[in-house]
Amino acid sequence: MSKLPAVFVDPEDSQIVADAKKQVPEDQDYSYTERDVILYNLGIGATEQELQWTYEGDDGFSALPTFGVIPQFGASSGLPLGWLPDFNPAKLLHGEQYLSIKGPIPTEAKVVNESRLLEVLDKGKAASVTTLVQTRDKATGQLLFENQATIFIRGAGGFGGKRKGADRGAATAANTPPRRAPDAVMEEKTFPAQAALYRLVHHSFSGDLSPNILPEFAAIGGFDKPVLHGLCFMGIAGKHVLKTYGAYKDIKVRFAGVVYPGETLTTEMWKEGNKVIFTMKTKERGTIVLTSAAVTLADGDKAKL
Amino acid sequence: MSKLPAVFVDPEDSQIVADAKKQVPEDQDYSYTERDVILYNLGIGATEQELQWTYEGDDGFSALPTFGVIPQFGASSGLPLGWLPDFNPAKLLHGEQYLSIKGPIPTEAKVVNESRLLEVLDKGKAASVTTLVQTRDKATGQLLFENQATIFIRGAGGFGGKRKGADRGAATAANTPPRRAPDAVMEEKTFPAQAALYRLVHHSFSGDLSPNILPEFAAIGGFDKPVLHGLCFMGIAGKHVLKTYGAYKDIKVRFAGVVYPGETLTTEMWKEGNKVIFTMKTKERGTIVLTSAAVTLADGDKAKL
Repeated sequence: MSKLPAVFVDPEDSQIVADAKKQVPEDQDYSYTERDVILYNLGIGATEQELQWTYEGDDGFSALPTFGVIPQFGASSGLPLGWLPDFNPAKLLHGEQYLSIKGPIPTEAKVVNESRLLEVLDKGKAASVTTLVQTRDKATGQLLFENQATIFIRGAGGFGGKRKGADRGAATAANTPPRRAPDAVMEEKTFPAQAALYRLVHHSFSGDLSPNILPEFAAIGGFDKPVLHGLCFMGIAGKHVLKTYGAYKDIKVRFAGVVYPGETLTTEMWKEGNKVIFTMKTKERGTIVLTSAAVTLADGDKAKL
Repeated sequence: MSKLPAVFVDPEDSQIVADAKKQVPEDQDYSYTERDVILYNLGIGATEQELQWTYEGDDGFSALPTFGVIPQFGASSGLPLGWLPDFNPAKLLHGEQYLSIKGPIPTEAKVVNESRLLEVLDKGKAASVTTLVQTRDKATGQLLFENQATIFIRGAGGFGGKRKGADRGAATAANTPPRRAPDAVMEEKTFPAQAALYRLVHHSFSGDLSPNILPEFAAIGGFDKPVLHGLCFMGIAGKHVLKTYGAYKDIKVRFAGVVYPGETLTTEMWKEGNKVIFTMKTKERGTIVLTSAAVTLADGDKAKL
C-alpha cells in the first residue's frame, strides 16, 4: 500500500545525493500496545494523577500526541547515511522534528512505516539530511502520522548540490516568538532516571537512542554527563502546550541545547491565531533547548483559550 | 516436565479444601526480555547511576534478585479462590511472600510456571491460602525460582480444617529482630508515579495489580488514596539488603502496612550468621510496612561484611 513517491527527485541534487535517494528503503512494520503508550506517557512526565494518560481503563485513556514520533523512529533513524563523505555517527545531531497527526491516535496498533530521503543539503562543513516517514495503520491503510526529521552531520559536507532547503510550510516555519511576554508558561522538573526510562519506550532500545545514558557516550558527544533524549523534552513541551491550549494537528521543534535529567524545563507559549509558538529552556542554566517551535491547533478558534 | 506433586495432600484438610487442591492448574508460560528487566529494576528505584541494573550493555547487567516474583505472578494470583465461602476479591490481602532463587537469573528467558495450592488455613473470620509456584527455564527445564505467596481473605473463614500452618523453614520463619540497634540502615524516597510505573512490569497489567492506582479501588480497600504494590516495596527492601550485604538465595517478608507513592522508606537490617533480618517502615508516618522479614545470604560467611 505504498503511497509515497519512490524518490523525491530534486534537479538541484548532486549525483551522490540523487543516487542515495534511489536506495528506497523497505517498509517497516511496528506494533505497540497500551502498555507502550503508558510507558511513553510516563517517560515524558505524565503523572499518576493524570489517569487519562497512565491508566488504560480510564474513559479518556489516550496517547499524548507526540507519541506519533515513536512508531516511526526506527524507520527514520535506520535510513543509511554511510554514503556521505567522512560520515561519523558520533558527529550526528538531531536538528529538527516535525510531526503531523492525521487523526485520533490508536492506543494500540500494528502499523507500517514508509521512509524516504526527503532533502539533503550541503552546508559546507556539515550535511543536513531530512527524512520523511509516513506511518499507516497496517490493517486499514489509514495514514496516522507523518514525520520529518532533520539530522545534522558535522564534518560530512562538501559533496555539492543544494545549500538551502525548500519551504515546506509548518515543517520549516521559523516560528519566531512575538515581542511580548509569553501568554502562558509551564514548568516541569524532570527526574534523574528519566533518560533511563524514556529509552525503554523503544522496543529496540539497543539502537541509536540507548547510549544516551552512558557517561562515555556523553563524552563522545561533547557533553559532560548523560543527556535527556531530544524527543523526550519535545514530548514534555508538547504536553505543556496540550494542557494549556488543547489538541493540535502538528508540532515542529528545533533542538537547540541539551537537557540533563533532573533539570527543570520551562515552556513559554504565545498564541498567534491557530498557532501556538513556543520555546523551552532549562530553568537552572537558562539555556534555550527548543526554538523555532510551534503547533497548529486542531480546531482553530474552537480550541481552548 | 512437571516436577511438583499434583496435590499437596494434608490429612487435616476439610473436604472443601481437599477438593480445591485437586483442581490442578495448567502450567503457564511466561517470557521476558532485557527491557522488562530494566523496567522492573527502575520500578523498584534503580537509578541511572546504577548501569548494572538499568543498561543492558553494562558488563554486570543483571536483574535485581526480587525480579523472581515477576514471572510467576500471573500463575500465583490466577489460582481459583471462588470455592471459599463468602469469597470477595475486594477483601483479599497479600500477607506474605517467600522467594527462593535457585541460580543466576537470566536477563531474558522463556519460562514455565507450575502452581499449586500448598496450604489452606481456616483462621475463623478469615481464610489464609498459600500458593506455591515453581518457575523453570522452558528450554532446559532448570529450576529458576520457587515462590510461596500467602493471601488472607477476610470474611472467608469457617470452612473447617487446619488452623495452624506447618513449619516450612525460611518460608515461615518468624525472623524477629535482635534487641540491639540495627547493624545497617538504608533509606529511599519513592516517587509519586512509582505505582503507575511498577504495574507496567506485568505484561498483563490489567489484572489484579492494576487497580492499585485508582482512587476508587483504594477506597474499597479501606485506604484513603492509591497505594504502592507490596511486591514493589518488598523489591526496594531486597535492593537495600543486596547493596548492604551482597547476594542472597532467598527472601521472605510479611506485609504489615501500606506505602503511599512518594513516601520515604527505611530498611533496618540485622546480620545474624548467614541471615539478614530486616524490617521496613515509612519515615514520614513511622508505620511498619514489612516485618518477619529476612534473607539467607548466598555464600554464608563469604558474603559482604
